[in-house]
Amino acid sequence: MNIKVVLEYDGSAFAGWQLQPHRRTVEAEVRRALSRLPGAEPRLQAAGRTDAGAHALGQVAGFRFSGGVPVSRLAAALNAWLPEDVSVLSAEEMPDGFHPRFSARWRRYRYRYLDRSARPAVGRQYCWQVPRRLDVELMSEGARHLVGRHDWTSFCSAAEPAGERVRELREANVARNGRYVELELVAEGFLRGLARGIAGALAEVGSGRRPPGWVAELLAARNRHQAPRTAPARGLTLMEVIYE
Amino acid sequence: MNIKVVLEYDGSAFAGWQLQPHRRTVEAEVRRALSRLPGAEPRLQAAGRTDAGAHALGQVAGFRFSGGVPVSRLAAALNAWLPEDVSVLSAEEMPDGFHPRFSARWRRYRYRYLDRSARPAVGRQYCWQVPRRLDVELMSEGARHLVGRHDWTSFCSAAEPAGERVRELREANVARNGRYVELELVAEGFLRGLARGIAGALAEVGSGRRPPGWVAELLAARNRHQAPRTAPARGLTLMEVIYE
Repeated sequence: MNIKVVLEYDGSAFAGWQLQPHRRTVEAEVRRALSRLPGAEPRLQAAGRTDAGAHALGQVAGFRFSGGVPVSRLAAALNAWLPEDVSVLSAEEMPDGFHPRFSARWRRYRYRYLDRSARPAVGRQYCWQVPRRLDVELMSEGARHLVGRHDWTSFCSAAEPAGERVRELREANVARNGRYVELELVAEGFLRGLARGIAGALAEVGSGRRPPGWVAELLAARNRHQAPRTAPARGLTLMEVIYE
Repeated sequence: MNIKVVLEYDGSAFAGWQLQPHRRTVEAEVRRALSRLPGAEPRLQAAGRTDAGAHALGQVAGFRFSGGVPVSRLAAALNAWLPEDVSVLSAEEMPDGFHPRFSARWRRYRYRYLDRSARPAVGRQYCWQVPRRLDVELMSEGARHLVGRHDWTSFCSAAEPAGERVRELREANVARNGRYVELELVAEGFLRGLARGIAGALAEVGSGRRPPGWVAELLAARNRHQAPRTAPARGLTLMEVIYE
């Protein structure tokens, strides 16, 4: 059976999703849980990698399973073996053609800012505190310049190969939610560093250091060296992977 | 000078607000920070005590200060000495008659439930996971029975002296907020265990095990032994102390 699981994890104590020697990673924890489950292959595909310190409320992963427990009890069985900072929200059987990464059409990320002078105590693992008030209107205006199919050289990591930096960004919205300012991004794929690069640039706009139009100039420049610093990973959460 | 500070803290790693020998408490941490501040007396009054594991976004405390730094820089100075799970949000000078506890008119608490089968990973320190879907309408109906001036014997801790268990509850509202169900309570004072006792009783109603009218019966019975278990402290947050 081809199994799809939806995962939530608190990235604070992880060196990201992907397996790495001698580091605590989410993939390693899920593999370890699979290895204790009769009938599961301890190999895993994920919709995407998340950075060290970034979180997920809706990561999707897949594995092969020969049915040691009923599929309806798979999530609970895995949660019994997983540490408290990883949780399986659901598990279901999919057609053989389903692949967590290649079948995914869109990914939705949220970046959360806390714009005030005092540092946070509650939820400090899940936001980036910026000491100045952010102007949500200016940030929204800046974000609108980014929607569309673009070369993201100015925003993504230099580790992404040149010539493979084009992706479609479908939505980029900024809104205040309680004490936070939240940026939501929906794209077909997120190049390394892209979401945090955009979040860093929009913080410049929101705090009034740059006008909204500067975001369009930055995009057109295709030059990483003009970009501001990348926003820290703790504010970033993979919310959802969308399949069609 | 009589100084009022508003405090935020993550109660996860604390044995509550109040000073206790050999335990890590919020009061002890704030006193330690005050002891490093020139001109501050390391004695502290708080609007109220919070339980071990409960949080605050708006606790209020007061202390005497002879002005070693400008009041406008007090919050930042204290935050430099406080650990990362406590933060001073603001500091201001008050008239001599102001007392954080005796001048307070209302306290507002929030109780946060996560009603789903899978345990939480993100924000697991800040909610109580109940495995069944909660019916917000039923909980709201139950909560309405509690508004008013009552003897809270059925809900509060047995440690509260009999005959001193009457308090006014001004508001009790239940609403869904994103993935959480949130109960908001505003009262002139919260007896020990009261907020968590109410949260536990309303969980019984929300999950359909008891009808809303049972809450009124429980209140009238004035008998702690008929009450359900107290909801865990990690879901509870002191949101605000209101002065008039």
